Amino acid sequence: MKTLLVIGIGAGDPDYLTLQAVAALNRASTFFLFDKGTEKDSLIHLRETICARHIRQADYRFVTAPIPERRREGDYRQAVDDLNAAKQALMVEMIEHELADDECGAFLVWGDPALYDSTLRILAAIRREGRLDFDYEVIPGISSVQALAARHRVPLNRIGQALEITPGRRLERFPAHLDSLVVMLDSHEAYRRLDEPGLHIYWGAYVGTADEILIAGPLQEVAEEIHRVRSAAREEHGWIMDTYLLCRGPADA
Amino acid sequence: MKTLLVIGIGAGDPDYLTLQAVAALNRASTFFLFDKGTEKDSLIHLRETICARHIRQADYRFVTAPIPERRREGDYRQAVDDLNAAKQALMVEMIEHELADDECGAFLVWGDPALYDSTLRILAAIRREGRLDFDYEVIPGISSVQALAARHRVPLNRIGQALEITPGRRLERFPAHLDSLVVMLDSHEAYRRLDEPGLHIYWGAYVGTADEILIAGPLQEVAEEIHRVRSAAREEHGWIMDTYLLCRGPADA
Ligand SMILES: C[S@@+](CC[C@H](N)C(=O)[O-])C[C@H]1O[C@@H](n2cnc3c(N)ncnc32)[C@H](O)[C@@H]1O
Ligand SMILES: C[S@@+](CC[C@H](N)C(=O)[O-])C[C@H]1O[C@@H](n2cnc3c(N)ncnc32)[C@H](O)[C@@H]1O
Repeated sequence: MKTLLVIGIGAGDPDYLTLQAVAALNRASTFFLFDKGTEKDSLIHLRETICARHIRQADYRFVTAPIPERRREGDYRQAVDDLNAAKQALMVEMIEHELADDECGAFLVWGDPALYDSTLRILAAIRREGRLDFDYEVIPGISSVQALAARHRVPLNRIGQALEITPGRRLERFPAHLDSLVVMLDSHEAYRRLDEPGLHIYWGAYVGTADEILIAGPLQEVAEEIHRVRSAAREEHGWIMDTYLLCRGPADA
Repeated sequence: MKTLLVIGIGAGDPDYLTLQAVAALNRASTFFLFDKGTEKDSLIHLRETICARHIRQADYRFVTAPIPERRREGDYRQAVDDLNAAKQALMVEMIEHELADDECGAFLVWGDPALYDSTLRILAAIRREGRLDFDYEVIPGISSVQALAARHRVPLNRIGQALEITPGRRLERFPAHLDSLVVMLDSHEAYRRLDEPGLHIYWGAYVGTADEILIAGPLQEVAEEIHRVRSAAREEHGWIMDTYLLCRGPADA
């Protein structure tokens, strides 16, 4: 039986890796990578560095599949579905042809595999198809949400209250029933549209990496600074990954 | 200057510890523990085991403070506030008298320090008081939410949709605007009250430990089984920690 490991590698600092993830890296012989052919490929290099640093056996290998970027125009859901269909076909191909029957292969997932990542959904779909037989395990990782909170040294939730995590495209106003909201995948800077009084923001880009930028404060006071700093950083790096926590008043009040 | 480290140790498996947490353990000379004097003290032993296994220097020590359990009757918020006030006084005491000026002390927090834990809020309050001077850092940890998802091998969110994390006492019905909801701190088994059709549940107790129990399926079909298994486990261990993900349909559809 083929075994697949879906390994969360943490969202930034290579030392976010868990001991369980290090052990899992050492079980795999083959590492499957997707190459988008963009500036973000520095993230591929990070994966190779992580393997080089933590794997003790010498005979592991990488299998890299070229993957198209998601379409930026048109319907978002459709674009994601198309991308995932392409990814699924590639994953079937890799599992079928690049892994022997008793071998163990690994997917290294940025952050935590359960949060805004398609690997688990695609593996479940492949198993439902019933054509390929394999077993798989999931290794959790430090998500960007936790990295953000740790670097700002704030709790994510209010005592006894809920926390929502949402993609930026769903944020129109700050939900009335909430005190705390984490926003991810926000290429349109939804925080700039919010005008509820009393909101505080804890923003971070490239969190946990050498390029980390953190800005926090009352939203109306720091929103333009974040916008300026964010635009300059995206210009400089060619890409950006950022996340923020919004709350009514200071997060640690 | 005194330094404090708030170290997330993960929520179950000792191998959830990150490399960053291991490095942090080795920076501290003094470990502050709270002892509730209950069956849950197996969690204190786990902390001592983690230190013994990962700390290389020999001369670290534990300072244990007895802490009252939270009152179970009366107003929840008031009971938590009273408990945190007691905890704050103890923490001031420990930082002031049990740590020399250039020493480094550590609090080992179950799971991730940013999620339903009071340590960060209390440290911020002590700093606002202005009487004690110290620096502090936060090390993120694998939360029970991520451990649960990993063990069930499911994503937490639907593509492009939000995820809410809520304490059980706030759950009356499944929120209309949500697809995915994680419930923590639910001693009253709120899932039994839900009657929205089509909900699936991914339940886990003692996740990541040797006593782990996992049950998943359509809520109406497995709710009574969870209740039975949960009651028996709590009886057997004297206490329980459990969490669950609820979603409309299977989580990995
Ligand atoms: C496709 S999602 C993947 C999330 C990942 N699985 C996790 O657990 O963090 C990508 C989004 O995560 C956030 N993100 C990931 N890494 C980040 C980092 N180091 N700093 C800030 N945001 C980050 C950004 O919001 C980005 O748009
Ligand atoms: C006070 S909160 C602490 C949460 C912790 N900081 C974290 O990141 O998971 C305690 C709640 O976390 C959940 N929990 C913690 N560890 C767990 C485990 N190993 N299995 C299941 N639930 C757990 C339960 O819902 C429990 O009521």
